[in-house]
Amino acid sequence: MRIKDLGEFSLIKRLAKDIKSSARVIAGIGDDAAVLRHTRDKYLLFTSDMLVEGKHFRKTSGGYLVGKKSLSVNISDIAAMGGVPMFAVISLGVPPSLDLKYVDALYKGIRDVARRFRIDLVGGDTVASEKIVINVSLLGEVEKKNLVLRSGAKQGDAIFVTGALGGSLKGKHLDFIPRLEEARFLVKNFNINSMIDVSDGLFSDLDHILKSSRKGALVYEKAVPISKHAKDFKSAVRDGEDFELVFTMPRAEGRKLVKKWPFKTRLSEIGKVCKDRRKITGARGYTHF
Amino acid sequence: MRIKDLGEFSLIKRLAKDIKSSARVIAGIGDDAAVLRHTRDKYLLFTSDMLVEGKHFRKTSGGYLVGKKSLSVNISDIAAMGGVPMFAVISLGVPPSLDLKYVDALYKGIRDVARRFRIDLVGGDTVASEKIVINVSLLGEVEKKNLVLRSGAKQGDAIFVTGALGGSLKGKHLDFIPRLEEARFLVKNFNINSMIDVSDGLFSDLDHILKSSRKGALVYEKAVPISKHAKDFKSAVRDGEDFELVFTMPRAEGRKLVKKWPFKTRLSEIGKVCKDRRKITGARGYTHF
Repeated sequence: MRIKDLGEFSLIKRLAKDIKSSARVIAGIGDDAAVLRHTRDKYLLFTSDMLVEGKHFRKTSGGYLVGKKSLSVNISDIAAMGGVPMFAVISLGVPPSLDLKYVDALYKGIRDVARRFRIDLVGGDTVASEKIVINVSLLGEVEKKNLVLRSGAKQGDAIFVTGALGGSLKGKHLDFIPRLEEARFLVKNFNINSMIDVSDGLFSDLDHILKSSRKGALVYEKAVPISKHAKDFKSAVRDGEDFELVFTMPRAEGRKLVKKWPFKTRLSEIGKVCKDRRKITGARGYTHF
Repeated sequence: MRIKDLGEFSLIKRLAKDIKSSARVIAGIGDDAAVLRHTRDKYLLFTSDMLVEGKHFRKTSGGYLVGKKSLSVNISDIAAMGGVPMFAVISLGVPPSLDLKYVDALYKGIRDVARRFRIDLVGGDTVASEKIVINVSLLGEVEKKNLVLRSGAKQGDAIFVTGALGGSLKGKHLDFIPRLEEARFLVKNFNINSMIDVSDGLFSDLDHILKSSRKGALVYEKAVPISKHAKDFKSAVRDGEDFELVFTMPRAEGRKLVKKWPFKTRLSEIGKVCKDRRKITGARGYTHF
């Protein structure tokens, strides 16, 4: 059996096979970031993402945006847990023949994002590699009361999404601002039951929430915010790499949120959480999960 | 200018250029692991290493040893700070055509090392990649009083090294036990002024200590423990990837250490720390730094 017959999600799960975590692990593999024992009031958040040339970016896009993306995707993960990023370590694999200007631009991209989000760059490893590979590991923290997991969605919750979805390959996937400010506003002022960032695509990521929460959902297709870069509805819910937030919260709270939302970032109520899991029907403007 | 004209160390330093770390960073880029504010009595330690197929290992060596190495090199870094490893996240880039057995063996190697050293595997990322790439990020902690930096070597310190050096390419570089138990014994029972693990080669790594500490050293060439796999003295001090510990401590303490050393692991006093930096002479059985 080969890797491609298995799929990415199953491959990660295989690592956790037969592992019993110690009591200091609050949540391990299976959320946007690991949740770890820390101080009396706070948890540590720990996440890591690898970007590979040819798969996640082309060399012709230049180093700067690649650097930005490598740190931003991790910030997006910390944001989706309700937390604040703090410390990053960078591993960089580069061909020895690569122009130093490319790496300098890449580092500048990382530094600019780090400065904006007050992240300390505290470590690095550089190795020779045929293709460019960047791995960023990010450590953050979250007040215990503000932690949001994928698994907390409740029946009747309203489902919200930030921004507009789809067509991110036209540029947004490399050049986006992680929704950290929005996420912190949400967890500090509202009762958010579950949250995830849109990396695999709205439907796929919403399904992660629903599976973890053992719930179903009804999505109002007409309410899904479609980016002008998306081809159509399908593209909006499937393309992925939007790095927007999907979250669920009690409907009454949701109505308050819509009134108080202080950001320019678009906010859309796109559906509700139901009791049972159903198959996707796609008919009549609703999508069932 | 190309990467190969610059060298690995300068490339890492470029990342830190123009960066001001916040007060929560005790020590950033430039030691075996970053040292970060944590609790009243303890610091966090944060480190990351990337292994690339063809550079750090051959696919024909099998997945198991590669998995072991990927976690062990990071444990070695935490050990060299005097700390204890706790949480690891794994990023894995693999060709989609790779046999699943290879990945299963690799994961088993990681799990076996994690179990032995009581490390929780708390996260993972898997991506498609032409060559196999593994990045492990490791989080640990150290009691403030037990932290050892590279920069603490003092004039008159005795220099010690564990194990035997050189020829690690014949097998040890893939199959070694990080000196965590030894390091913890050292920091809990003795006054260790500086420590590093031997990854680049004894002379290169000792020089990291001396540069950070602004000191020189005299190495007794005949006291350097040469592995039976090393070609000669030069190979022993230059090959690297030994993953032994080099450390310095007051000479009187050193004499006590030699008497009380409870491990089968060899312990050798190989030189002393001097006031001034000098050039390597290599003559008459001494090497000056």
